[in-house]
Amino acid sequence: AEVQKKITPSRLGIQEQEPELQLIPPQRAARLGKQPGALLVVASLIDKPTNLGLCRTCEIFGASALVLDSLRHVTDKHFQSLSVSSELWLPLLEVKPMELTEFLQMKKSEGYCIVGVEQTANSQSLQDYRFPEKTLLLLNEREGIPANLLQMLDVCVEIPQQGVIRSLNVHVSAALLIWEYTR
Amino acid sequence: AEVQKKITPSRLGIQEQEPELQLIPPQRAARLGKQPGALLVVASLIDKPTNLGLCRTCEIFGASALVLDSLRHVTDKHFQSLSVSSELWLPLLEVKPMELTEFLQMKKSEGYCIVGVEQTANSQSLQDYRFPEKTLLLLNEREGIPANLLQMLDVCVEIPQQGVIRSLNVHVSAALLIWEYTR
Repeated sequence: AEVQKKITPSRLGIQEQEPELQLIPPQRAARLGKQPGALLVVASLIDKPTNLGLCRTCEIFGASALVLDSLRHVTDKHFQSLSVSSELWLPLLEVKPMELTEFLQMKKSEGYCIVGVEQTANSQSLQDYRFPEKTLLLLNEREGIPANLLQMLDVCVEIPQQGVIRSLNVHVSAALLIWEYTR
Repeated sequence: AEVQKKITPSRLGIQEQEPELQLIPPQRAARLGKQPGALLVVASLIDKPTNLGLCRTCEIFGASALVLDSLRHVTDKHFQSLSVSSELWLPLLEVKPMELTEFLQMKKSEGYCIVGVEQTANSQSLQDYRFPEKTLLLLNEREGIPANLLQMLDVCVEIPQQGVIRSLNVHVSAALLIWEYTR
């Protein structure tokens, strides 16, 4: 079960009523008149569907694509109510958690800077950090980024916080990083 | 029914197991070692409980208080799962929608700048806007801010967006403004 499958970012073939979804991401980006963008948001480690309203935020700020653990989320009514059809306008890729190592490696070799949101001794503050153009943002929920992926990050960014509660909701954290990227 | 009630920001008296909640906001702020803060987030017009995860974001970024249409939200299991106990550390006020005119007027006379998030001909871009210290942020869901309140705003701020989808989720919009306020 731990054998990694070849990564073939596949499209859902079941959305005949949504022809946009059958376009492969670069085609869709071109059709939308978007730059072949450089901010890739990886949400494969997010398991609470309520946080995938992130799709809307990614589309609005012009992320180049959103990576999900499964494209089947798109058929979920709850996902749809949160994404308010943004999934039709944003390239989506499927990369399962067990494929992430290989995926990150591939993106590194394409020149992407792999950015995680973590509080570590070496984290850079979001207030000062300047994102490189080719940025891959690896998101995670409460448990943190697994050790095997943590070592692949080029940089950890932390969001300065003043409250008692430890960490922001992952959609909110992601939105702040995406906003700062586009700023 | 349209007669405005006197505004008495009351505390929930039913939380005996949560003594923090019985403190009035300035006491609680003092006990928490917080500055008697100057960013007041008004969520009375938000009616989707899922967006009240905002409570967590307000606490983390040190808002002085969060204003809700009803303090009863605090007893809701769903609210609690989203707020991850931040409601114990953040002063909460109850102001019903029909009391908002009077509340905003009172805060104006205390020197607060009333800020709305709206795209209007005169909106200022969030990228350039500098928040005054005493800021009251008036949030709203999709329908926009009602006309009688819109005319009370000192400034409208808009978030520059590049996507097809019109507007961000209200929790995300609020988070970006709160982040920029604390920046």
